[in-house]
Amino acid sequence: MNDAVQSVAIVGLGLIGSSIARAVRARLPEARLTGFDGDPAIRARAAELGLADMMETAAAAVAGADLVILCVPVGAMAAAADSIAGGLGPDTIVSDVGSSKAAVGETLRERLPGARIVPAHPVAGTENSGPDAGFAELFQGRWCILTPDEQADPGDVASLSAFWTTLGARVEVMEARHHDLVLAVTSHLPHLIAFTIVGTASDLERVTESEVIKYSAGGFRDFTRIAASNPTMWRDVFLSNKAAVREILARFKDDLAFLERAIEADDGATLFDLFSRTAAIRRGIVQQGQDVAKPDFGRSPG
Amino acid sequence: MNDAVQSVAIVGLGLIGSSIARAVRARLPEARLTGFDGDPAIRARAAELGLADMMETAAAAVAGADLVILCVPVGAMAAAADSIAGGLGPDTIVSDVGSSKAAVGETLRERLPGARIVPAHPVAGTENSGPDAGFAELFQGRWCILTPDEQADPGDVASLSAFWTTLGARVEVMEARHHDLVLAVTSHLPHLIAFTIVGTASDLERVTESEVIKYSAGGFRDFTRIAASNPTMWRDVFLSNKAAVREILARFKDDLAFLERAIEADDGATLFDLFSRTAAIRRGIVQQGQDVAKPDFGRSPG
Repeated sequence: MNDAVQSVAIVGLGLIGSSIARAVRARLPEARLTGFDGDPAIRARAAELGLADMMETAAAAVAGADLVILCVPVGAMAAAADSIAGGLGPDTIVSDVGSSKAAVGETLRERLPGARIVPAHPVAGTENSGPDAGFAELFQGRWCILTPDEQADPGDVASLSAFWTTLGARVEVMEARHHDLVLAVTSHLPHLIAFTIVGTASDLERVTESEVIKYSAGGFRDFTRIAASNPTMWRDVFLSNKAAVREILARFKDDLAFLERAIEADDGATLFDLFSRTAAIRRGIVQQGQDVAKPDFGRSPG
Repeated sequence: MNDAVQSVAIVGLGLIGSSIARAVRARLPEARLTGFDGDPAIRARAAELGLADMMETAAAAVAGADLVILCVPVGAMAAAADSIAGGLGPDTIVSDVGSSKAAVGETLRERLPGARIVPAHPVAGTENSGPDAGFAELFQGRWCILTPDEQADPGDVASLSAFWTTLGARVEVMEARHHDLVLAVTSHLPHLIAFTIVGTASDLERVTESEVIKYSAGGFRDFTRIAASNPTMWRDVFLSNKAAVREILARFKDDLAFLERAIEADDGATLFDLFSRTAAIRRGIVQQGQDVAKPDFGRSPG
């Protein structure tokens, strides 16, 4: 099939799921929108916010849907797939928003044999979690990567691509293993480093946590934003994308050792050379609309 | 002495120097304000912007000043000290804004014997450089750390403290070596890591620079801001604060190895535990006004 999606079911109403719900309401106001969350408190809050027609079971939420999107941590994907299996129709597209794609694709295909599976990853988010944290514009101008395998129906891929485009995203199709390597660089390693350095800073004996907080404007505070992200989600990302994270982390450690040797050797030329090259990457990110050019990310002074 | 500063000379009109000049104009409009920059282009631009009465030599700029602030990279501090030596009066306080303090204090005391030296470090900045990048509110609510040695005159320390308070900063007095350790955590290591990871991402063979830029909203873009900072300044910071950077870097590498082992061992509980603790540090930073609470640092969507 390659029809416009008219009925969407969202399983998991956290930051991403609730943002999709809000974006569907804004951009596809005619679509039928149902939802389910395994946590009764989130289910109730999502209903209170009017995010979707919240159902009491996942199977009920997905019944009759053209598109089901699993918005749960990667480690909960198998259970989520099991919970919807009974409700899927023959034409329902099953997608997700997980940050690692090879493992998720395998899980979904294993748990939902015969289902029309098109894994996806909208590269967008904030450090906040939960149904109150979402907003309709989250995907505006951001990339959504689809990772269908060779069994996927091209019409389903086109439908999902059109759906994400309607929500404001730009769409790219990519092989799942390549996605996992690219995201290991642009997302997983940065989070791993940020979690590490924030942990390091809070565990020192000779520098107090109060000092770390007071003088964080020297650079440290930038790392704390992503280190405040959802712990469950990130635990699952690292455990499900080990090989790529290992490969990129090894490169990072080599590069760090190189810089460390340059410092020890008083090799200012090497330091200056690297520190000059890195600014070009930021210019590219700003030019392509993936960040704002304002100093300090536009944080207001004071 | 412990008098209000009535005449200020700024040597070096980059981001910090030009921000001090603007803050002096705004908060101390009666003060005499002179300036010098070793780069004729910056000198001309500073004059054009009306930042200060720009002089043709450093000695002329500091003549008659109550307070001289050297706003040059740490590695240029010795030359800057030499250039002002002939113009200092007996009551002139000599300060600076360098990011490492033990080395700078030694340099200033060696080059300016008998001068009234009070080293300082305003913990504030943006990723932008040069006289056009500064703004009067840069120091508002930020900490300025003074690191006088035991020879410094308490009245001079009080005068400098009052000056920075007038500019909107909060002032702390600290031993220079402790400053260097604290800032190695909250500023130097974050910059070193950010420069490294941005370099790593741009040097991969299997992931293109274009891919890194496109999918940077997954977390990577946060690192690129501080990796776009002034290369000369940062080269000098690492070369002048080696011992503290080495100590903190060793801790960071140990902690990274610990996390890496937890991933390899599928130890989700350890990952979850660390990822939960780090959010508390961010809450402290936001509560104490050192960062904004808005998601994504308040970056506007799209």
